[in-house]
Order: sequence, then C-alpha cells, then structure tokens
Amino acid sequence: MKQKLAGKFLVLDGPDGCGKSTQVRLLSEWIAEQDVDVVSYRDPGTTVVGEKIRDILLDPSHEGMGDNVEVLLYMAARAQVWKEHIGPDLKTGKCVLMDRWVSSTCAYQGWAGGFGIEKVLTIGADSLERLWPDVTIVLDVDLETARRRMQRDLDRMEQKGDAYHAKVREGFLRLADYHSDVKVVDATEGVEEVHQDVLKYIQEI
Amino acid sequence: MKQKLAGKFLVLDGPDGCGKSTQVRLLSEWIAEQDVDVVSYRDPGTTVVGEKIRDILLDPSHEGMGDNVEVLLYMAARAQVWKEHIGPDLKTGKCVLMDRWVSSTCAYQGWAGGFGIEKVLTIGADSLERLWPDVTIVLDVDLETARRRMQRDLDRMEQKGDAYHAKVREGFLRLADYHSDVKVVDATEGVEEVHQDVLKYIQEI
Repeated sequence: MKQKLAGKFLVLDGPDGCGKSTQVRLLSEWIAEQDVDVVSYRDPGTTVVGEKIRDILLDPSHEGMGDNVEVLLYMAARAQVWKEHIGPDLKTGKCVLMDRWVSSTCAYQGWAGGFGIEKVLTIGADSLERLWPDVTIVLDVDLETARRRMQRDLDRMEQKGDAYHAKVREGFLRLADYHSDVKVVDATEGVEEVHQDVLKYIQEI
Repeated sequence: MKQKLAGKFLVLDGPDGCGKSTQVRLLSEWIAEQDVDVVSYRDPGTTVVGEKIRDILLDPSHEGMGDNVEVLLYMAARAQVWKEHIGPDLKTGKCVLMDRWVSSTCAYQGWAGGFGIEKVLTIGADSLERLWPDVTIVLDVDLETARRRMQRDLDRMEQKGDAYHAKVREGFLRLADYHSDVKVVDATEGVEEVHQDVLKYIQEI
C-alpha cells in the first residue's frame, strides 16, 4: 500500500454538508498509518493568494457575482496551491489529499450554475497543471441530510438555495461520465461506514 | 459620428508608461463632445469584486504568483465588470471606453510571461461574454521613454524588470496578427499628437 500511495493525488469532494472535512481527516490518518507521508489542503485556499480569493468567493455581500467569475477565481486559487504545494509535494513522493478540486467547479458552476461542465473542464485544462487527480471520491448526500448537518452561518455558496444545491448533487453524480476515476460513496451512513467505503476505493488504486 | 460611436466598445491598451490614462481621458472628452454618452472603466477593477482582485494582482508581496493565476484573476475581474457595467451600458447605447482589456493579458502573461497568447484567448473566449472590442488601440512606447514617465512606486506587475517589459511591448505589437481591429499608435510623441493619432483610428470606425 505504501508504494501505491506515494506520489498520488487524491480528492474527496461532494455537496456542502456531505461530511467531507471529517472524511478527509480520517483518510489522512489512515494513510499516515500506512507509513506514507501525506498532506491535505483545502480548496479554495491554503496559499496567501488563495485565502484572499476564498474570501472574495465566500463573502455573502458579493451577491451579484457571475458564475464565470466564480469559475475563474476557483481555478486561480487552484493554480496557486499547485505551484506552491501540490506540485512540489507530489514530486517528493508525498500523497496529496485535497478537500475539493475541479470536480466541485463542474458540479457547482458548471452544472448548478449553468456555465457548462465542458467549459469548466476546458478552462481547467488550459490553466491548471493537472485537471484530474488519481482518484476523485464523491460523497453523495441528499439535500435534507446535508441541511441537517449544516447548523451554522452559511457562506455565499452555501446560501444559494435548495434548487441550486439539488443541482449541485446532480452535477457531482454526472462526473463519472467525464472521468473513469470518479467514485461515488453513499455519505448518508455513519462516519465509520462512510470511511470504510472510501477506503475500499483507495485500496483499489 | 454620433451614430457610429453609440453602443461601441473601445479599448486603449499598451505597456506601463505609455500614457494610457491621459489618452483615455482625452478620448473620453472628445467622444462626449460628439454628443455620445460615454463611460470609461479601468481594468482590472471598477466593481467591488474587481477592485479586490486588482489588489491581489498588484500587491508587491505576492511574489510567487503564477502566470496562470494572473491570467485567471484578470479574466475574473473582466467577467464581473462586464456583468455589472459594460454589458448593460452597451445595451443602452453607451460608448464604453476601457483602460486595458484581454489584449493586456495577451501581451503580459501570454507573451512576456510565456503562458501563450493562444491559451489566453481560449480562456477568454470560454469565460467572457466578449473577447475583442470594436477597436483596440495599442499605445506603443519604448522601454526607456516608459520608465522615464513612471517616477513613482511601482506595483507588482510594473516591478517585473526590463526583460519582462521589453517582451510586453513585443507582445502588444504581435496582437495585430490575432485580430484585424488592433491598431498601433506611436506613443512617444507629445500628448496632443498621440491624441490626434488615436482619433484617426476612432474616426475610421
């Protein structure tokens, strides 16, 4: 397992409220237990420039932001975290585990926002060093369960309403049509069951 | 002239120190004298989101920003100013005069930064409502004259050094190969001569 995970680029993704952060932490701990040097980063953010971009994207006062603006800003944050962290990390054999990646922009802006998944992928391919990770695991959750888990102040993206978020889920479920390494896990189960389902796909690498 | 300028999208562009701001002001005054409703905006910036993006781009402490990150951020600022201002303005028949547009990203990141002019244009075409204005006038100036005009604190882009800025000029001069409505004016002359040369191209619309 150690050799299989070294230098691999893994992504956990899914709608808001799918339990991503918890699963990223559990997976990261499991990878470390396999004696693999693992790092995880949040997207968008992590770098100085990326965190400033994140602030622009999630600020609830920026109501009139275009979906094309969102696509470009998310990609910009990714390009910078690749340059400063992911690229160098993978080169030195670390396993990189991302909380969200291009798959999110496909589901949110591409599908729910109507910008178009193909156009998101084209812009990503033209601007990023790497579009698809080795594995993308989508944590699938229905809207009701997701909303129940999110008892806190919502950011601008989270505030977009149920119709938008229902389409976000749909968008994530379509991603397997675009890339064979997208795997879907039922994230309505308990934390430990979901973790085991995630591990099943990681062990398939 | 009035009918020809209404609803037109005009861009003045060129290397730092070419005298753009002055020429934008003079041209804007001249257009208003033709009894045409004219607005001019700076790029990047103008909108709340765009000004925040501008701050990220020009902050001298952001030394390690990738050329791909710059391309995406400039495009994002443009997409937002189009949504809030340029698009609605053109629809109501205003003449819009921009201080910089995609032509800048072609010259700076595309050519001087080595990202590739074609890739800049592809990303622009996929993400912006409009890539090329009705006319782009490039104010061409040699590096020495430009530097002499810029006796002030330089922003991050301006600080990139002579080799980069020599290539920026080269990039601007190549743009005519990509679009027939790019016109080049010698901007080393006096302010009034340059203004007259600019008017010559505007009157050709």
